[in-house]
Amino acid sequence: MAEQQNESKVPKEITPRSVDFSQWYVDVVRKAELADYTTMKGCRVIRPYGYALWENMRDALDRRIKDTGHQNAYFPLFVPESLLKKEAAHVEGFAPEVAWVTHGGNEPLEERLAIRPTSEAIICSIYADWVQSWRDLPILINQWANVVRWEKVTRLFLRTTEFLWQEGHTCHRTHEEGIEETLKMLRVYAEYAETELAMPVIVGMKTENEKFPGAETTYCIEALMSDGRALQAGTSHDLGQHFSQMFDITFEDEDQVRKHVWQTSWGVSTRLVGGVIMTHGDENGLILPPRIAPVQVVVVPIFKAANKAEVLAKAQEIGARLKAAGVRVRVDDRDQYSPGWKFNDWEMRGVPLRLEIGPKDIEKQQCVLARRDNREKAFVPLTELEARVPALLAQLQTDLLERARRFRDENTRTVASFDEFRQVIEDKRGFIRAGWNGDPAVELKIKEETKATIRCIPLGDDNRPLPPPEGLKCIYTGEPAKYEVYFARAY
Amino acid sequence: MAEQQNESKVPKEITPRSVDFSQWYVDVVRKAELADYTTMKGCRVIRPYGYALWENMRDALDRRIKDTGHQNAYFPLFVPESLLKKEAAHVEGFAPEVAWVTHGGNEPLEERLAIRPTSEAIICSIYADWVQSWRDLPILINQWANVVRWEKVTRLFLRTTEFLWQEGHTCHRTHEEGIEETLKMLRVYAEYAETELAMPVIVGMKTENEKFPGAETTYCIEALMSDGRALQAGTSHDLGQHFSQMFDITFEDEDQVRKHVWQTSWGVSTRLVGGVIMTHGDENGLILPPRIAPVQVVVVPIFKAANKAEVLAKAQEIGARLKAAGVRVRVDDRDQYSPGWKFNDWEMRGVPLRLEIGPKDIEKQQCVLARRDNREKAFVPLTELEARVPALLAQLQTDLLERARRFRDENTRTVASFDEFRQVIEDKRGFIRAGWNGDPAVELKIKEETKATIRCIPLGDDNRPLPPPEGLKCIYTGEPAKYEVYFARAY
Repeated sequence: MAEQQNESKVPKEITPRSVDFSQWYVDVVRKAELADYTTMKGCRVIRPYGYALWENMRDALDRRIKDTGHQNAYFPLFVPESLLKKEAAHVEGFAPEVAWVTHGGNEPLEERLAIRPTSEAIICSIYADWVQSWRDLPILINQWANVVRWEKVTRLFLRTTEFLWQEGHTCHRTHEEGIEETLKMLRVYAEYAETELAMPVIVGMKTENEKFPGAETTYCIEALMSDGRALQAGTSHDLGQHFSQMFDITFEDEDQVRKHVWQTSWGVSTRLVGGVIMTHGDENGLILPPRIAPVQVVVVPIFKAANKAEVLAKAQEIGARLKAAGVRVRVDDRDQYSPGWKFNDWEMRGVPLRLEIGPKDIEKQQCVLARRDNREKAFVPLTELEARVPALLAQLQTDLLERARRFRDENTRTVASFDEFRQVIEDKRGFIRAGWNGDPAVELKIKEETKATIRCIPLGDDNRPLPPPEGLKCIYTGEPAKYEVYFARAY
Repeated sequence: MAEQQNESKVPKEITPRSVDFSQWYVDVVRKAELADYTTMKGCRVIRPYGYALWENMRDALDRRIKDTGHQNAYFPLFVPESLLKKEAAHVEGFAPEVAWVTHGGNEPLEERLAIRPTSEAIICSIYADWVQSWRDLPILINQWANVVRWEKVTRLFLRTTEFLWQEGHTCHRTHEEGIEETLKMLRVYAEYAETELAMPVIVGMKTENEKFPGAETTYCIEALMSDGRALQAGTSHDLGQHFSQMFDITFEDEDQVRKHVWQTSWGVSTRLVGGVIMTHGDENGLILPPRIAPVQVVVVPIFKAANKAEVLAKAQEIGARLKAAGVRVRVDDRDQYSPGWKFNDWEMRGVPLRLEIGPKDIEKQQCVLARRDNREKAFVPLTELEARVPALLAQLQTDLLERARRFRDENTRTVASFDEFRQVIEDKRGFIRAGWNGDPAVELKIKEETKATIRCIPLGDDNRPLPPPEGLKCIYTGEPAKYEVYFARAY
């Protein structure tokens, strides 16, 4: 839709990443027609190409959520003010960001309704009815929904007033089971981010300062964007009994004692779309991982008037064959653009593979396959398409992850002093692995002085915080380090 | 989740349909755990079983929407008051039902924001930016979203403050193309309702009184519920240029003249879930069409302590085989319930096929398949399961549609006088096909006197209103009938 107009409607040039990363990002999002602003401050529209990307991302995660035993449900958009206020830390964290409904129809409401900024409060009030006995547990439910947070500064996909997400909300019999669930979903997120989004992540625990309002412990996956800033890509919260006590979610246990349930919640959002863009994109625009790309292969026919019919027919035939092989393919048969224009256009939109077919190729029963990521081109016999294209897509997916991982590792540094820390954060950004004495006040001072925050305390394979290397000192105080943590400036 | 508690938590008895249809409906929705009330008036929660049903319904329609060339997108939840007010009939129709956001964070907003009751206004304001040239047309976009209408009287699924739906919004170059799109989607809805929901529908046009606020013409599909009341199951609107003129959506045509686009919108909602329940359910609860049932086959093992392990193992093996054959299957291996209790429970939940397997069956290498709709049972050799089960499910789907169509036809009557009309509407309900002179005032009088409304003016295969039979009179005035229309009391 409306693609024909790009040439005239939007700037053909994308601001170079090296000149202004933020502007590059906005240019890519708008020019590739992923999303756009509306006249309402902070509200955006996700355009069809961006929404198709989100659908693929959503479906890939939804499969994992169901495969781990969860079911989807749908809870109300509104949270009565009295419910939101039940958990003290929770309301303190979210009240400044809440949009309030005060009138329904033409009448004022008796009680203001918050539009959910997250659904713990409304869901807990409902779970209190559903849970009666240990036999009702665990409750393993997920919701795909829109939420609203009244943000002062917004950025397409990364921080918008309304966004789309999934939020899991579970209830368990014991704290151990709750912790196990929290960590299971954290690992699901990590595997999902790496497998589907080709986005390498650090798996860790948040500090007290950075945890979710109302959580006992917050875990997270943290990614590094190509400008050296970190992105919190997903969180999983051990809620302990903070909410179950306030909302009185109790069950009669096998021993006939009435107990409060242990809860978790976990979520990822459309902000991941921003993460994909900033992980893989380059000066020419988007690069989309094949597993989530709305169009995996674009077929560009190259013809003159004399051979147009023949070339177009072959292009359509190839498109049909690839579609039958399970490839998401688009044949760009538009008349009004040259092949070169189309190449640029689809590169900007991040389509992983381009298939070029012209009269000489048809003679030789071959075509050209060009990779978006490294621009490698290869002549491929037409008979081999059904085998070669999926293999190339899989290779490209792996290579993107490897490239991102290499970038991340090259931009994860250790430093010898706080002066060097300051310097690196200012000049190079990236992650800094450094010692921290565990004191929240020190964390805040570092943030004040450098704008870097502790992104996470990394976890080992056993899901425990990794112990610091022998003799590591706190980068700020010189005291013995309690943890070696990841610092970065973050989105 | 929580199924073990049904015995104690919810009434085991469903109110008989014949005694109190409304209460039967609520009992079924709540006892089958499709949805439930919350403490907030008019707001409901869609529980996992109900949401799984909706997901299947949604996906089946989404495929059709995409196959007809539409793409999904996502537009803002909020509609600034000034935008909502642009189209006069539209705001008059919806203002009484709007929930208003007046505060964001801790500050009052400069302009109130409506929570979308439908998205014409917000989407048109965005389309005005997107459409510039005839090359941008058609715009063929659909949105899956939540909407809010402040209803005074609510009913689970059928009328709730918040509900889920899809809304298509398209722009075209000519009125002819807009009409073609409106009717195409109307026919998609009809085919969808019959194929997937086994719900026969009348395809028709709404009268002026009943059309969508802001539409030029509203088309609809109308179904008949088993209590004899009609349900508007989907609508498709030819919006003409009503919105494009108010929102200034214009394009430069090939002749270089600036013109307003022609628009359509069309939608169905979670109310269809209510339609499925009321079309197929019986005294024992739900009956779900196999194509959308979350569980198509429940396997109930019948064992004693001595042979439990063997029977359970066989039940699991059968479950795995059916799953591999693409059947949505559930093995009910719960210990705490008897087979009889399970039979009732799954019948109430509307699972189309029950597979019983016990030690004698295992000996004979067979099992029992019991249909939910007509209770027919058959012994089936285990070797034939992969062939027989899908065939039975397909047969059951067809039979449900046929049964509903027969019911609908038997409950569609003609009458000789308005007295008889009154009598039939009061005693038998159902559809009445009767002549109408085309006068909106007459339509309103009939509504006042009988609570029956004109559900639609039926369309022929050529999509034109069917001409009335020769000599047909208006049932109210005795004047020559302009149309033969469908009357009914409706949800």
